[in-house]
Amino acid sequence: MEVEIAVAKVNKYASSESGDTVEMIERPQGGFSFVLVDGQRSGRSAKAVANLVARKAVTLLGEGVRDGAAARAAHDYLFTQRGGKVQATLNILSLDMVSRTIVLSRNSHCPTLVVTGTGLSVLDEPSQPVGVHRGTKPAVVELPLQVPTTVVLFTDGVLAAGERRGQSLDLPAVVQRLCNECGCAAQAIADRLLAEALELDEGRASDDITVLALTVRARREEDGSGGLSRVDVRRLMLTVPLD
Amino acid sequence: MEVEIAVAKVNKYASSESGDTVEMIERPQGGFSFVLVDGQRSGRSAKAVANLVARKAVTLLGEGVRDGAAARAAHDYLFTQRGGKVQATLNILSLDMVSRTIVLSRNSHCPTLVVTGTGLSVLDEPSQPVGVHRGTKPAVVELPLQVPTTVVLFTDGVLAAGERRGQSLDLPAVVQRLCNECGCAAQAIADRLLAEALELDEGRASDDITVLALTVRARREEDGSGGLSRVDVRRLMLTVPLD
Repeated sequence: MEVEIAVAKVNKYASSESGDTVEMIERPQGGFSFVLVDGQRSGRSAKAVANLVARKAVTLLGEGVRDGAAARAAHDYLFTQRGGKVQATLNILSLDMVSRTIVLSRNSHCPTLVVTGTGLSVLDEPSQPVGVHRGTKPAVVELPLQVPTTVVLFTDGVLAAGERRGQSLDLPAVVQRLCNECGCAAQAIADRLLAEALELDEGRASDDITVLALTVRARREEDGSGGLSRVDVRRLMLTVPLD
Repeated sequence: MEVEIAVAKVNKYASSESGDTVEMIERPQGGFSFVLVDGQRSGRSAKAVANLVARKAVTLLGEGVRDGAAARAAHDYLFTQRGGKVQATLNILSLDMVSRTIVLSRNSHCPTLVVTGTGLSVLDEPSQPVGVHRGTKPAVVELPLQVPTTVVLFTDGVLAAGERRGQSLDLPAVVQRLCNECGCAAQAIADRLLAEALELDEGRASDDITVLALTVRARREEDGSGGLSRVDVRRLMLTVPLD
């Protein structure tokens, strides 16, 4: 099988800095973790908060600290640094090769959507953002690493899309449709969900928007990469638009 | 303009752990850094060394430490931890949005290849690996962020490819050809250079091989991403083959 994890991300319209931060780290015992943080408000101050939380979490995960403990530590750190006055949402998605599971830790009001062979489920157990309430814990869910699995998570710019016009995305319906149409291509799912959110915002995002999609699929026989299809190649790609 | 950074990576044949590690971090003042480390030997012990060096470097870069200082610190840390007995190569490639340059820090015997509008240059100033010689410094080169620019760097699995049969890649010629043929697509350049190295090794890599390519190109008008082409979307994608 093969795991693909993709992120698509835009800034709030006319804002040069995003309060959303995504970091990735290799787990020392095998696998990867993605950390997605949305700092309170937008612009430079949100970016600073998001960086602080994301950096604390990835540093610990990179040292082999378990996900739940890394989320608790990121909360405690922000709470201590900012006196409980600033909040951030925090999602950690890990591909854990020791347990062979996908570990989802959520400190966010945004749900996480999971589509497997048995249908779609919405992970929306109440959970608090980090930084403001003493003793905050993440909501943690572990999924077996099996084909087919799709996980979609996002920051609240997706929920806010269309609000100006009294509209919103029907997220379970959209994610199920994208899953059917995109054939387990994580980048297409992330791109298209972002595009649908932006469309509701008439092309001008009312908040920073980040979408992260993970898919577990059967290995493709031919991937058009010039003779590499029979070899285990890991790939990473980052694309950044600049002025 | 648009910057694309891509990594393609295989383990040494029949080896389940790679001594090559790549980490990525967002720079707190804007931009990204990629850290590529090849730990001495292969397998688990090499992985541990590579992780230690890479983690130290990305942690410092994430705190805003400048690249040359992060490379020196990673050296000092490995030297102290392992008593000067273990070495690793270290490359840091940064997209620095403060100086609007590409910063290349090299502690490796592997050259870095750069192709711009004025032709190809080989960055091969002598430089030492980290971990063994007191006071080791990186060779640092800064390039302006301009179209067209391609940077290719790699671990010594690329140099070792074909050695068993007395062959080797003519790297400047290969990189220049890939640049011409791949039209500034970093992922295609990384994939195809890896494929050519593997071909010389008859499909069984004699060492861990990692290739990192960066391209700076004009923004594409239509990128097939469903209506996102007029918006500044950042994208990140990781693909991992699993058993």
